[in-house]
Amino acid sequence: MKADARCLVCHMNQALRVFNKYIRSEEGKWERLKNVMDVLKSARWGMKPIEIAEILYPALENMVSVRDVYEQEKKRSNEMAEKMLEKFGKIIRSSMDPLYDAAKLAIAGNLIDLGTPNWDEDGIYRKISDILQKPFGINDYEMFKEELSNATKILYIVDNAGEIVFDRFFIEIMKEYNEGVEVVVAAKSKPIINDATVSEAKEIMKNVAEVIDSGMTVPGTIVEKGSDRFRRLFFGSDIVISKGQGNFEGIVGEGGGNVYFLLTVKCDVVADFLKVPVGTMVFMKKKE
Amino acid sequence: MKADARCLVCHMNQALRVFNKYIRSEEGKWERLKNVMDVLKSARWGMKPIEIAEILYPALENMVSVRDVYEQEKKRSNEMAEKMLEKFGKIIRSSMDPLYDAAKLAIAGNLIDLGTPNWDEDGIYRKISDILQKPFGINDYEMFKEELSNATKILYIVDNAGEIVFDRFFIEIMKEYNEGVEVVVAAKSKPIINDATVSEAKEIMKNVAEVIDSGMTVPGTIVEKGSDRFRRLFFGSDIVISKGQGNFEGIVGEGGGNVYFLLTVKCDVVADFLKVPVGTMVFMKKKE
Repeated sequence: MKADARCLVCHMNQALRVFNKYIRSEEGKWERLKNVMDVLKSARWGMKPIEIAEILYPALENMVSVRDVYEQEKKRSNEMAEKMLEKFGKIIRSSMDPLYDAAKLAIAGNLIDLGTPNWDEDGIYRKISDILQKPFGINDYEMFKEELSNATKILYIVDNAGEIVFDRFFIEIMKEYNEGVEVVVAAKSKPIINDATVSEAKEIMKNVAEVIDSGMTVPGTIVEKGSDRFRRLFFGSDIVISKGQGNFEGIVGEGGGNVYFLLTVKCDVVADFLKVPVGTMVFMKKKE
Repeated sequence: MKADARCLVCHMNQALRVFNKYIRSEEGKWERLKNVMDVLKSARWGMKPIEIAEILYPALENMVSVRDVYEQEKKRSNEMAEKMLEKFGKIIRSSMDPLYDAAKLAIAGNLIDLGTPNWDEDGIYRKISDILQKPFGINDYEMFKEELSNATKILYIVDNAGEIVFDRFFIEIMKEYNEGVEVVVAAKSKPIINDATVSEAKEIMKNVAEVIDSGMTVPGTIVEKGSDRFRRLFFGSDIVISKGQGNFEGIVGEGGGNVYFLLTVKCDVVADFLKVPVGTMVFMKKKE
């Protein structure tokens, strides 16, 4: 999926959010934002949005002299997600279709900012409850469920910290639904935005799924840039689950892999591409 | 009022709105937005937001090869405002305090985009009705009313097309309230964004008020850059009425002039400055 001019403005806003965290002086933010313009000017027409992020974020780390700019938020997100899972896990296990509701929960984590410093547990609880009531705007779940029954190997490409806790729960439910299935989780090589890294994913997934390094330095997936193991699994697994917008942006429109996209539409560019409103929850099988 | 980093991002968005009107190709918008970055990089820390616009808009005109990028919107706004005045004029004249309600109407024009291509007259009517019910968030109206009783000379600095029709109505009501008062209207030298120009203002104001050229090429007012006549009137009038954010940004914090600001807060930067939420309607006397 190609980036357009709106993605340049969006990345300026993303940079400003990082500066607001780490830079006190307003003039310091102003001058650094001009440096961001220099970085963005090197983005070429035809790039994917996640490739803009790939050149921007390392530059941002230098500008604020911090390696992992969302480290604290990622930790808080995981903690909050564990708390929420204690509440929703039991409810979902006893629901009409635990697999369906677990998929919804895995998306809910993507929609809610679990990493804000001032937690409002009740507020987050209500938000997740609301999301579990909302239908998917694009819904290939029944097809997925049928394929899952016969699958032996699944590659699960995770997205952000926080939601990864709900991903683990979804994987557990998948394994209960089909006891013969093996799930391998792919996570990012190194920190980028608030994506879960391999080491973070390993901590969350222990005893549930093997975690491999996708080889990605973009906040998403560009298959040809993946590690050997990742590419073998991408093309060789019965099902690939791709979580979130970043993985969607990189994989959609590319050939190969039996991919199901599980995401919330978060921006106009993706909304226009899918012809659905921002906020839509999507469970979509990739077309060849 | 000083611009901050958010103003740089906002001007990128403003540029994109202009490109969306005049440039068909997505790649064309993408490349021109990089040219916008070059222009914005020349903005110096300490500038007012309207001074960023002053360097951006002439550059935008060149990039899209159009002189007056909001010409059509301005015409449509004036037509729609005349239609609305036919309805609200009578109601306001027979209200408890026509002067107060006319001031509100003059602000309503600033809040509503009267220039959108697909008019929804009923929708706009309802919006203006709602606004007339809303209180001012900062309210020095009683002080203004008292000063108006004793005033002989008022300088009225207009802002956008469309709302200028309501400004004319407010001026008529002021003159009925104090028959001895003379009102001079100041408008922009040449087109910038959707601000009313001298020639546009003259057409709207005929028989009601003299219109002078403020000498401004910014979408607001920077007094020391004004024409001789403008500066004489600014410092010599009993009351100066400054409409809208652009004039506010340039005049607030500067010395001289007995100024009343009449505006709707439209962005976070002004909201932070005034410590009120975005959307607040303000009728505020300038502090020395």
